Amino acid sequence: MKQILGRQTMLELYGCKKTFLNDVSFIEKVMVEAANRANATMVQQYFHQFSPHGVSGTIVIEESHINIHTWPEYDFAAIDIFTCNLEMDVRGACDYLREILEAKKEVVNSHDRGNLAIVNQIASSI
Amino acid sequence: MKQILGRQTMLELYGCKKTFLNDVSFIEKVMVEAANRANATMVQQYFHQFSPHGVSGTIVIEESHINIHTWPEYDFAAIDIFTCNLEMDVRGACDYLREILEAKKEVVNSHDRGNLAIVNQIASSI
Repeated sequence: MKQILGRQTMLELYGCKKTFLNDVSFIEKVMVEAANRANATMVQQYFHQFSPHGVSGTIVIEESHINIHTWPEYDFAAIDIFTCNLEMDVRGACDYLREILEAKKEVVNSHDRGNLAIVNQIASSI
Repeated sequence: MKQILGRQTMLELYGCKKTFLNDVSFIEKVMVEAANRANATMVQQYFHQFSPHGVSGTIVIEESHINIHTWPEYDFAAIDIFTCNLEMDVRGACDYLREILEAKKEVVNSHDRGNLAIVNQIASSI
């Protein structure tokens, strides 16, 4: 089995409810709840309302980070969940976000971060 | 040509100088410089030193975000540059980070975020 340091899940939500995506307080509340549902340990959070529209937000978690960018003009949100705890309930967080944002379509990709085979290969060549 | 809302570049740096990766002030300084080199417009930044080791940091930029997680124990750093401005000099930022952190190996992947064809398909089906 490939040994990795973390996994990044990229969730794309299409056809979300437009007004939700432009409401920084709402987005912050649902992202915090998503972090809770994933069993993440929150360290710090920062959310920003862009003008004329759009929200960006990051929650630094002990396990790495969770963040979101919204495009209300396209009913679209891009979410990342990066965790070094592979037992975290990422799927539960994604399901919650898809439902609460009333998304009509989701696309999920995941990407392994930090291959221990490469770490060890470099360490042994020094 | 595929029309997208953003592009996420995932940079993995192996064999970095260990002491650099555990120095939150240094990491913050080089990430801010990387953002400048990419011609990003910074909104807010947040960096956190973990105990016993490791740093996480996020810079919210007008164009989306830049962040880093470090594993000093593995001489490894995972960096993300997410931008909705496809003209941003992401390659310049990656080259700078690879050099300043004295990485022995880099792995770069990029992932398109927000496919306008899907946005339009859903909008026309409502």
